[in-house]
Amino acid sequence: MASNDSDSRPAVGIIMGSDTDYPTMAEAGKTLEKFGIVYEMEVTSAHRSPGRTHEYATSAAGRGLKCIIVGAGGAAHLAGVVAAVTTLPVIGVPLATTPLNGMDSLLAVVQMPAGIPVATMAIDKAGAINAAILAAQIIGLSDAGVAKRLTEHKQELAKGVAEKNARLQEQRSKSVR
Amino acid sequence: MASNDSDSRPAVGIIMGSDTDYPTMAEAGKTLEKFGIVYEMEVTSAHRSPGRTHEYATSAAGRGLKCIIVGAGGAAHLAGVVAAVTTLPVIGVPLATTPLNGMDSLLAVVQMPAGIPVATMAIDKAGAINAAILAAQIIGLSDAGVAKRLTEHKQELAKGVAEKNARLQEQRSKSVR
Amino acid sequence: MASNDSDSRPAVGIIMGSDTDYPTMAEAGKTLEKFGIVYEMEVTSAHRSPGRTHEYATSAAGRGLKCIIVGAGGAAHLAGVVAAVTTLPVIGVPLATTPLNGMDSLLAVVQMPAGIPVATMAIDKAGAINAAILAAQIIGLSDAGVAKRLTEHKQELAKGVAEKNARLQEQRSKSVR
Amino acid sequence: MASNDSDSRPAVGIIMGSDTDYPTMAEAGKTLEKFGIVYEMEVTSAHRSPGRTHEYATSAAGRGLKCIIVGAGGAAHLAGVVAAVTTLPVIGVPLATTPLNGMDSLLAVVQMPAGIPVATMAIDKAGAINAAILAAQIIGLSDAGVAKRLTEHKQELAKGVAEKNARLQEQRSKSVR
Amino acid sequence: MASNDSDSRPAVGIIMGSDTDYPTMAEAGKTLEKFGIVYEMEVTSAHRSPGRTHEYATSAAGRGLKCIIVGAGGAAHLAGVVAAVTTLPVIGVPLATTPLNGMDSLLAVVQMPAGIPVATMAIDKAGAINAAILAAQIIGLSDAGVAKRLTEHKQELAKGVAEKNARLQEQRSKSVR
Amino acid sequence: MASNDSDSRPAVGIIMGSDTDYPTMAEAGKTLEKFGIVYEMEVTSAHRSPGRTHEYATSAAGRGLKCIIVGAGGAAHLAGVVAAVTTLPVIGVPLATTPLNGMDSLLAVVQMPAGIPVATMAIDKAGAINAAILAAQIIGLSDAGVAKRLTEHKQELAKGVAEKNARLQEQRSKSVR
Amino acid sequence: MASNDSDSRPAVGIIMGSDTDYPTMAEAGKTLEKFGIVYEMEVTSAHRSPGRTHEYATSAAGRGLKCIIVGAGGAAHLAGVVAAVTTLPVIGVPLATTPLNGMDSLLAVVQMPAGIPVATMAIDKAGAINAAILAAQIIGLSDAGVAKRLTEHKQELAKGVAEKNARLQEQRSKSVR
Amino acid sequence: MASNDSDSRPAVGIIMGSDTDYPTMAEAGKTLEKFGIVYEMEVTSAHRSPGRTHEYATSAAGRGLKCIIVGAGGAAHLAGVVAAVTTLPVIGVPLATTPLNGMDSLLAVVQMPAGIPVATMAIDKAGAINAAILAAQIIGLSDAGVAKRLTEHKQELAKGVAEKNARLQEQRSKSVR
Repeated sequence: MASNDSDSRPAVGIIMGSDTDYPTMAEAGKTLEKFGIVYEMEVTSAHRSPGRTHEYATSAAGRGLKCIIVGAGGAAHLAGVVAAVTTLPVIGVPLATTPLNGMDSLLAVVQMPAGIPVATMAIDKAGAINAAILAAQIIGLSDAGVAKRLTEHKQELAKGVAEKNARLQEQRSKSVR
Repeated sequence: MASNDSDSRPAVGIIMGSDTDYPTMAEAGKTLEKFGIVYEMEVTSAHRSPGRTHEYATSAAGRGLKCIIVGAGGAAHLAGVVAAVTTLPVIGVPLATTPLNGMDSLLAVVQMPAGIPVATMAIDKAGAINAAILAAQIIGLSDAGVAKRLTEHKQELAKGVAEKNARLQEQRSKSVR
Repeated sequence: MASNDSDSRPAVGIIMGSDTDYPTMAEAGKTLEKFGIVYEMEVTSAHRSPGRTHEYATSAAGRGLKCIIVGAGGAAHLAGVVAAVTTLPVIGVPLATTPLNGMDSLLAVVQMPAGIPVATMAIDKAGAINAAILAAQIIGLSDAGVAKRLTEHKQELAKGVAEKNARLQEQRSKSVR
Repeated sequence: MASNDSDSRPAVGIIMGSDTDYPTMAEAGKTLEKFGIVYEMEVTSAHRSPGRTHEYATSAAGRGLKCIIVGAGGAAHLAGVVAAVTTLPVIGVPLATTPLNGMDSLLAVVQMPAGIPVATMAIDKAGAINAAILAAQIIGLSDAGVAKRLTEHKQELAKGVAEKNARLQEQRSKSVR
Repeated sequence: MASNDSDSRPAVGIIMGSDTDYPTMAEAGKTLEKFGIVYEMEVTSAHRSPGRTHEYATSAAGRGLKCIIVGAGGAAHLAGVVAAVTTLPVIGVPLATTPLNGMDSLLAVVQMPAGIPVATMAIDKAGAINAAILAAQIIGLSDAGVAKRLTEHKQELAKGVAEKNARLQEQRSKSVR
Repeated sequence: MASNDSDSRPAVGIIMGSDTDYPTMAEAGKTLEKFGIVYEMEVTSAHRSPGRTHEYATSAAGRGLKCIIVGAGGAAHLAGVVAAVTTLPVIGVPLATTPLNGMDSLLAVVQMPAGIPVATMAIDKAGAINAAILAAQIIGLSDAGVAKRLTEHKQELAKGVAEKNARLQEQRSKSVR
Repeated sequence: MASNDSDSRPAVGIIMGSDTDYPTMAEAGKTLEKFGIVYEMEVTSAHRSPGRTHEYATSAAGRGLKCIIVGAGGAAHLAGVVAAVTTLPVIGVPLATTPLNGMDSLLAVVQMPAGIPVATMAIDKAGAINAAILAAQIIGLSDAGVAKRLTEHKQELAKGVAEKNARLQEQRSKSVR
Repeated sequence: MASNDSDSRPAVGIIMGSDTDYPTMAEAGKTLEKFGIVYEMEVTSAHRSPGRTHEYATSAAGRGLKCIIVGAGGAAHLAGVVAAVTTLPVIGVPLATTPLNGMDSLLAVVQMPAGIPVATMAIDKAGAINAAILAAQIIGLSDAGVAKRLTEHKQELAKGVAEKNARLQEQRSKSVR
């Protein structure tokens, strides 16, 4: 039931350096599903499988992808390496996989030189979810279905806060008694 | 001679918290011009002019903007505040305006909670330029002219490196003599 | 048994971005109770429920609040966003909710631009307790009952240290035997 | 022409560890003047003149001060030391006086233990200005004149942004030609 | 069996801000015992019991103490506050008691202004042990018994490494089989 | 079955400051074994056994070692101290053994002054493995067997990524059902 | 007068992302010259000229290089990208080219994942010099001429310290008079 | 006119890694002179002249030194290396000689392992001055003349603050007019 019905090809690629990143990056996938966006997901490494990564990135636009979400930790070069060879928007998710708590991956993803942007998200799960929403925002510019879901999503966020507030008031009234 | 000829309305909004941010954020403007993308530029502050900011952000999509580039320093909330009320892609450029060298603005821009992405760029000038390129990549998904210029831009980057290398070899041969 | 007896309206508002922040922010509430200060507590988000937040902040003074305590983590914009639209003192409590251990929220709360102060407290529980004490100090300037309790509180702190010292000497004499 | 006309005694004390801090802390003074708040200013050090500091802090409330603004750099203990012996609100301004760019003073001011709050501001000049505004917000709770000026100040901030925007548009039109 | 036999008065004072610091600071005590140095241990806080702290520090030299070991976490002012009022060597042990992992306490202890040194040790347990050894080194300058034990201690350290190496070789030969 | 068959003497020395570092540094050993490189492993400390360390480092080249891998945490001086007295390549592995998560050891290992390089690896296990691979790369320059295994290792890395990708696809298809 | 006389081909490649890095990386070249090691120097970028970089790195071993020195700043991916496709030792020099003072480049160079080491040096000039010395140490394992010069270099370092000490004593005797 | 009149031998050694550190470390010397303490000053490096450093450190106690002040920058190992081979108190002054502003040297000096303390001072000039004062505090334990001067020094510090305050009041009255 993707928004791009006539076209069942994935609109977004999600790649990550290791299958241990899957639990975090799966959040990006789940979020894309909420927006009805078809995606593919691959493990490929900037350093361990540079050929595979190059092939993936250079063929991405031709295969119909609209943007690429990249999760990586440590000296997180994967997003930059992909961005070097595609003109698609590349969205980077720094992962906290080393003792430095993701500060290393954040700086390695965000501090790209002039000419090659990587749209950097927050570290770990929040970043993975947001990468998917940014992808939806990009796709939504030319896809009315996704655009509509984004508006609904904003309303759900506000509704979610109201519900959390209700839960808080309940917790408080309990703890008072 | 914008790429969106039939539509001379700005496709990108560039906003910043202070006119002292102009020299840096002007780089985003110049870069958009290279891609033939019409833009507007405004000073508005998350904290000093919240009403103006809210009006700007909520009217952005309706006015035909495709994305919003936001430069801010210190406790840089402007990008997040804009992203809270629009479903357009918001691109954040952290500016090094305090003694903490931009680490404060970087963290305040990038560490957004799940639900509200800000596409974060590098600190200062490189980030301003890349914000414009990311905007072009987003617009290029549905604008063949911009897409073509992005491909040319990639080639120019590689050509620029070759020229820099030539300059280096020249410098070296001089310093040898 | 609030200090402002004739006026059972809350004197302090405590807000937070998520109900998961409740265990920490509840410390602020408990501390206010010790000082006999009536408070209200709400979940509202700078990014997910900007309308609700705006309404809360703009109506705060009119509803009789004397100051607002704000807990937030990550790119913690909530305190700044509230401070932008009220002239009440806003007290910010950075929460360690991301892998960066609260360094992100601390910088996002404290590095406010000239014009819009946020009175920033320590990260997490110590900050939540201290936010309440600062609120009491502010209210105590014009409320003799609260002022008296603050003086007693200082004495209790010193007494608490003496008791801890007694416990230490006991522990030591045990571990010696 | 202080707001507390009948009472020409200072309402705010500004202290700093060294006279070299004066250029920064003078901003706090200038800002208080805008709000018509009478203040005093002293050099006193937590470490070099502990007696003087203790005397200053313990006598502050009795002398009619409503809050104390403290500027300090490095291992910035002055605010905490003052807060230890007064129940007045203490506002701390971390100063970037060492090679660590104010990160040391920020942490030494803000990370106070539960029981003894210091209302921490941004590093350096923005923090000094905001310390004065927070003081005005506290005093404004029971001083209608100051409260009125705070509302005007918010409007001036917004007006200032509009003016900066006008300047930006002018700069841009110049640079275009 | 203290080294200063004729004088059973403590030669070293160990103070800490809370009894929760006891497990770490007890290491300083145990180490002093190895060197036969008599010590006292107290809980006192820079902020919660400033009077008690002042009394402790100002009377220290008169009571025969040769140096003071101070453990503190967060905005760790205790060592500096003590050093402000005594000319005895003050040895500071930063404790990792907040989410910032001791970086806050380290900077708050070590970055003292010119005039008031605090001899800063490593964070947590290694620092507590080393504080005691430094105290022994200071006392050993005029106490031949302690000096002799310090020389023996150096030999034990080297012997300890040799033993650890033997354990390693054993571990390795086991894991090989 | 070492690559340097005619010479069963170790080609690489692995040293560490404590036997508690063994579980991490054992990874370096296991990796060297994959490349058929004979190694020795010792505990020796820059600070606790300086004589032993000096003897080890000065005799290393004469005993046939080609490079020395050094694991150390905290104020990690061991690699620098060894590099000071040998002209063999010294490879440093910073270990996260203190509350500062290895940032202290990283800076203490990598920021060597001009004249005395230490080839610094990532913090902890990844660094230990990579130290061994770098040693193999150095030895492989003049050892065809090791060089061949390095080429195979690169292929295995790529193959490993492909396998991880297969596992990911499997995980995904499971989680879909 | 290269040490590898029969072979005038470069033994070391020095690459950098921009010609603005030349002044720093030239130090690596000058140092190699002291050791009589022939080198080549090129500008090539991980992101702007990925094809050129790939070609350079994959052909390096075949062209007779023994190791590759890589200078890069910001999200410094160049060393990692090169290391991904060669089994030669890769030596990384982080450059302080952004407001973050080289902390970004340091982490992006050093925190490589298991499997792909980069021998990381200190930030900027000291690192560039040390990269050359490490290259000499590697080459010196199988080149007696370079090995001899390394021993002499160590002696010169010590002699340099003695000379600096002489200068210090002179400065002191002057400042005393 | 040294305090140890009968003994004109230096009581304190000041060493530093390079003569470029002299301007900062000279402050330690000047401060010792104020206390009438005879000192010596040498350049010696942990890494470039390890033999000289070892000789200096092992002979220090025998030559009558009471403590050793060590200034060093970057991967500042000098203090630790000295402390490894002497039982004299070693006082470390981290110097900001690299782009990391002294954070590297601070961590490399202070995070010493259990067994080998280095009494760490603030970064740069304040640290150099305080190293001398700590040395005086140590010597003053058994030298009545130095002890007396320390008491006077404390009074001068307080007097200095009073004078600075006078200057401030003067500056203010000028700027008012």
